[in-house]
Amino acid sequence: MPRQAQAQGSAQPPGAPAQAGFLPGRIMAAEMAEQPDRLAGLLSRRHEITGQVRSLIGTGLVGTVLVARGSSDNAATCGAYMLQMASRRPVSSGSPSVHTLYRTNVDFSGYLVVAVSQSGQTPEIVEVVERARSAGARAIALTNDLDSPLAGAAELVVGLEAGEERSIPATKTVTSQILAFALISSAFGDIGLSDQVAGRLPAQVAQVLADPAPAEDLAGWLAGSDRLATVARGLLYGAAAEVALKVEETTSVFAHAFSAADLRHGPIAAASGGLPVLALAHPGPTSADVADVVAALRRRGASTRLAGPVPASDITWPEGPEILAPVLAVVRGQQLALALARLTGHNPDSPSGLTKVTAT
Amino acid sequence: MPRQAQAQGSAQPPGAPAQAGFLPGRIMAAEMAEQPDRLAGLLSRRHEITGQVRSLIGTGLVGTVLVARGSSDNAATCGAYMLQMASRRPVSSGSPSVHTLYRTNVDFSGYLVVAVSQSGQTPEIVEVVERARSAGARAIALTNDLDSPLAGAAELVVGLEAGEERSIPATKTVTSQILAFALISSAFGDIGLSDQVAGRLPAQVAQVLADPAPAEDLAGWLAGSDRLATVARGLLYGAAAEVALKVEETTSVFAHAFSAADLRHGPIAAASGGLPVLALAHPGPTSADVADVVAALRRRGASTRLAGPVPASDITWPEGPEILAPVLAVVRGQQLALALARLTGHNPDSPSGLTKVTAT
Repeated sequence: MPRQAQAQGSAQPPGAPAQAGFLPGRIMAAEMAEQPDRLAGLLSRRHEITGQVRSLIGTGLVGTVLVARGSSDNAATCGAYMLQMASRRPVSSGSPSVHTLYRTNVDFSGYLVVAVSQSGQTPEIVEVVERARSAGARAIALTNDLDSPLAGAAELVVGLEAGEERSIPATKTVTSQILAFALISSAFGDIGLSDQVAGRLPAQVAQVLADPAPAEDLAGWLAGSDRLATVARGLLYGAAAEVALKVEETTSVFAHAFSAADLRHGPIAAASGGLPVLALAHPGPTSADVADVVAALRRRGASTRLAGPVPASDITWPEGPEILAPVLAVVRGQQLALALARLTGHNPDSPSGLTKVTAT
Repeated sequence: MPRQAQAQGSAQPPGAPAQAGFLPGRIMAAEMAEQPDRLAGLLSRRHEITGQVRSLIGTGLVGTVLVARGSSDNAATCGAYMLQMASRRPVSSGSPSVHTLYRTNVDFSGYLVVAVSQSGQTPEIVEVVERARSAGARAIALTNDLDSPLAGAAELVVGLEAGEERSIPATKTVTSQILAFALISSAFGDIGLSDQVAGRLPAQVAQVLADPAPAEDLAGWLAGSDRLATVARGLLYGAAAEVALKVEETTSVFAHAFSAADLRHGPIAAASGGLPVLALAHPGPTSADVADVVAALRRRGASTRLAGPVPASDITWPEGPEILAPVLAVVRGQQLALALARLTGHNPDSPSGLTKVTAT
């Protein structure tokens, strides 16, 4: 059933009005289905974007500060790893309240600020960018809206061009944001992402979208639970956070992501109490650590599933460079969230109490 | 009953062997009871510590990177706010895997690294400090063990002198770490923490410890739940994370902290599904935002409790400077974790599957 609905959703133009008889989540499904095209569009602007970023950053960069909330913050978490590897300078996640509430005058000389917001409207994000620029920062805005206050506050706007997002849970915007971080990072140095390798991503995302069955199986595994822990390390950690948030937004399941290293410090105790754990892994330097945590969880009797193109995984995605794996993992998470919402009687297009733009 | 046990625990020397007939958590209770003395000891070394920090940092600091895991990372989150306000330079939370797994050579010129570990043994923390120093960083270790590998790797060791910690859930070490961050921060600039004001903290902690009844009431509120969200903003956010971790470690309840701003982006959906929410607030620039989130949660029918010296709170602590409020909030969280563990038949001194030192 969810597979049919998804096909139906993707055949339906995203701007069409809601009609009786459609399954819940058809807008979300339609927006998910746009992702291969949106990612291809962004990739076609790669050299324009990297050229602009190189002109902006110049020399003497001492660090980068990322400013975002919600799904955009999960994309920024992926970006933090990419940018550290590419810029070889520390990257921090901004603490907006330091600037907007405590009103500390932080010296941003030598820093790049990257602010991420789908709408570009969130006032606290705009205020942090304005304060950082007046204190010496160069600033990039990653947003869908080139006329938004955030776009106006930054020196360089990287337009996501993901199109209007009508479903409350962000999907196509998040994968575009993650890819945009990879492209921005590649302006700093070689991160092993040739045009040829990057160019395979849209087809890989389409391949995942065409195969929702494993995500529907995962939804069946989770259907009786009101809790979910996701686990990853390194580049996939931000994807694990986004998978958790997507499930939480669409189903009200209390979900949270852990670094595999942090899980050992306390949260593993909860896993012995029946907490389902979804681990994300990709072949590379972090996969052994995730495999080790999964083995420890299973020894403790925890209900654990493994995702990714690694041995003995329960759900996978096409193998490629680890730097793009977060995009594929997030699409798997979208499928899981959509299937679980449908299975448990939620409508992911308008979860109770959520709005697209928050005031802080 | 828990009140009696706590008194009994504190009368029992922490080094005494376990005896039949003691209530679960007597070691944790005894270590909690040491906190006023441990904090007073740290305060007595304030000027020695600030002098050493000033000599180390010199001029030209561009930013600070914090490296920690588990409870120490929660103390570091409090420290990130303090250090941004005091140093007026960005502060980031280190991503150890960038260094230890991806082996990126990050340039730390101009940076201070503060590494936090009770035991000073965690290999990945030590490795990050070694790599950062060889790439230009100055480094401070906050640890209980002056002979540990971490102490050996840093230029300046701030000994916590919290004494041996025998209970698995860290208590006295965490409050000492938070206070140590406040003292280190005061070496950078005026953070409104005179010796006179800071000197009141041990008595305030003793006052909280002498009054466990409100925390026992909170434990009764949580006794039927396997989930808990904690919420705060700014300086108290790290304390909210530590309260969540303490409850999780001692009871296997799946607990997680949210910034009040992030809660609005998705997790608030889970609150309508019966998720208990404990909000922490302190009079100051962030209290209105927390009050606003609590009101929104209550409108949605969420089971919400408010902690702190603010109007209509359910559990409080003595009012003082906001920069020290995390210490008092964390002690309240320790009381809650201890009481909830006892109420639900757990022994917080040795939760299943946790060890004091993890390998990553």
